[in-house]
Amino acid sequence: MDRVAIIGASMTRFGDREAWIRELLAEAGAACLEDAGVSPDELEHLYVSNMASGEFEGQTGVVNALAHDLSALPAYTQRIDQTSSSGGAGVYAAWQSVASGASEMTLLVGGEKMTHRSTAEATDVIASLTHPVEYKHGVTLPSFAGLTARLYLHEYDAPRESLGKVAVKNHRNGVDNPHAQFRKEVDLETVLESPIVADPLRLYDFCPITDGSAALLFCPESIARERGLDHVVVSGIGGATDTHVVHERDDPTTMRGVVESSEIAYQMADRTPDDVDVAELHDMFTILEFLQSEDLGFFQKGKGWRAVEEGVTDRGGEIPINTSGGLKSKGHPLGASGVAQVYEIYTQLLGEAGNRQVDADVGLACNVGGFGNCVTTTIMEAGDV
Amino acid sequence: MDRVAIIGASMTRFGDREAWIRELLAEAGAACLEDAGVSPDELEHLYVSNMASGEFEGQTGVVNALAHDLSALPAYTQRIDQTSSSGGAGVYAAWQSVASGASEMTLLVGGEKMTHRSTAEATDVIASLTHPVEYKHGVTLPSFAGLTARLYLHEYDAPRESLGKVAVKNHRNGVDNPHAQFRKEVDLETVLESPIVADPLRLYDFCPITDGSAALLFCPESIARERGLDHVVVSGIGGATDTHVVHERDDPTTMRGVVESSEIAYQMADRTPDDVDVAELHDMFTILEFLQSEDLGFFQKGKGWRAVEEGVTDRGGEIPINTSGGLKSKGHPLGASGVAQVYEIYTQLLGEAGNRQVDADVGLACNVGGFGNCVTTTIMEAGDV
Repeated sequence: MDRVAIIGASMTRFGDREAWIRELLAEAGAACLEDAGVSPDELEHLYVSNMASGEFEGQTGVVNALAHDLSALPAYTQRIDQTSSSGGAGVYAAWQSVASGASEMTLLVGGEKMTHRSTAEATDVIASLTHPVEYKHGVTLPSFAGLTARLYLHEYDAPRESLGKVAVKNHRNGVDNPHAQFRKEVDLETVLESPIVADPLRLYDFCPITDGSAALLFCPESIARERGLDHVVVSGIGGATDTHVVHERDDPTTMRGVVESSEIAYQMADRTPDDVDVAELHDMFTILEFLQSEDLGFFQKGKGWRAVEEGVTDRGGEIPINTSGGLKSKGHPLGASGVAQVYEIYTQLLGEAGNRQVDADVGLACNVGGFGNCVTTTIMEAGDV
Repeated sequence: MDRVAIIGASMTRFGDREAWIRELLAEAGAACLEDAGVSPDELEHLYVSNMASGEFEGQTGVVNALAHDLSALPAYTQRIDQTSSSGGAGVYAAWQSVASGASEMTLLVGGEKMTHRSTAEATDVIASLTHPVEYKHGVTLPSFAGLTARLYLHEYDAPRESLGKVAVKNHRNGVDNPHAQFRKEVDLETVLESPIVADPLRLYDFCPITDGSAALLFCPESIARERGLDHVVVSGIGGATDTHVVHERDDPTTMRGVVESSEIAYQMADRTPDDVDVAELHDMFTILEFLQSEDLGFFQKGKGWRAVEEGVTDRGGEIPINTSGGLKSKGHPLGASGVAQVYEIYTQLLGEAGNRQVDADVGLACNVGGFGNCVTTTIMEAGDV
């Protein structure tokens, strides 16, 4: 079967942007088409990953606006929402559109515009994704993170400092990412002395609120070859849910959605965790990088924190994680993040990552919706031109 | 290639429901699984079509809540939004999930909860799907409908009464639909003397605001056969956009999205308009039934109104349209409507439509997003057991 290729990728600068969602989507979408040298009238499907443009700025139908702004008519359009993993869900939807034969040229643009709302307002919109039984008690995602971090440190005898080192590493990587929201190093002391948000987690354990957009262009690999285009292929992809009521989980330090979605992706790609050379994980909170690195099979349960301590996940380490700076320093515009993860892997596999470049033939992106309520895992490899 | 089959279908009662979106989705989803005799743990993908649960009731992540309520873990979940054609977009997404090989059992549940909001509030949420250049001038979908109706009557020498006869026909059909919001006949005089909403259109030219949900279960046809299940197959499906700025259209009485999406669907199904025995069209406004019946190729341009006058689209006519009662009498819970259209065709093709039953081997559903900004067309045929 013809594999699904990614032939173009782009992302806007992430951060506090003086632009509305429509403008952000158009900026990334147009740049992606230009990157691939594909004309908008060649598009058959156009997808937007976005969680909440209606709630954040009272604007819906943004994918139809994007079709207008890119002159992509009569391309079929659709918005995909899977809360904070809308981007990964969009990658899966775009993959399906090509793999099913429905489209031979699908542009996916993920984006979110959030910074015009207060942190409290934005946090409340995000919290509305949780089960009502938890939401009505005021439980937010940061509070789940604090509880889980406390349990993890206790169960696996991990020092508090190890969490801080995730933030230090990802900020260091972000310095070399021209699109990142924060391009500055932070030292461990700064992280550990920042204000408490959800004990034991502090401000620097959390990703910021961000505006931004990212885009990917998908087609059958045969078309990428015909056109002689550099490309990566999606060799494995899968998605899976965990309990929507977070307190029902048997072991809150295991994200079943990560385990199950990666099993599907590994099997499809005929790969094992050992084959993965570089990974973008969903470090919305520092603790999540530990959980995912274990649940994806990179490290044994309870050993993820040691890998960070030992530099295994640094750019020079055995399996670099979040070379982009991660959500932590790059920022987390909800609908864009999963798309931007794939952008980073695409860039690494094609050797275009500049100062961030690592040696990689196989890359993986893991995008977490809610507190792991639904997760997508995507495995990519450089394609043969 | 193995075709995609629909092996189960359900819908809740449409109307003013004392239930939130979560409850409505769960009601339809559970009934659909029961209809097919499939267990929730067999589900691989679970999709929800919904435009605006966040805007209407401050609840997002509803598809993850549904996975919880149906005990469908670890099925992958995703929400699909394409404004008022979210249901049709969901059908396309579910079709892609099976046709791509990503899932062998996909449940799609469409739903919307709207009646707890005032008509003005609901209309504003819907209007937020239009291009900002039109929205800021206060243009709503009903106003587009009024302008288009006036132009159509003028261009094609159609009497005002012909529009009213769409409402009369669809209300008559709705009487026999136990799920319909309005199960009462209306006479032409009542329609023509109802309050003006957007001249020349009056209250009875418009669908109501509705709560409700509908569901469909998709799998490869080979699995439907193995299990000996009655089923229909999706023989053709396509989607297409028209200008997002409605006033940019060369001819506002032609919906390019209907023309283009149906061309894709007819070609895939190897069918022509003449082959279609029964159709569900998106009669959010009476004028839209004329436009679609022409743009789908059932009637020549400007002749759709005559077909209604002559009874061609009645249950006993050559091509019955909206045997379900249409959006007009059945109601229009945004994310559910496109799913409920396919439910009606499924029911007709399997001979399970009771008093509404017509003689049909090939059926078509056309779901319109916004004012034709994006449209999906689905062609279905009874499968071989």
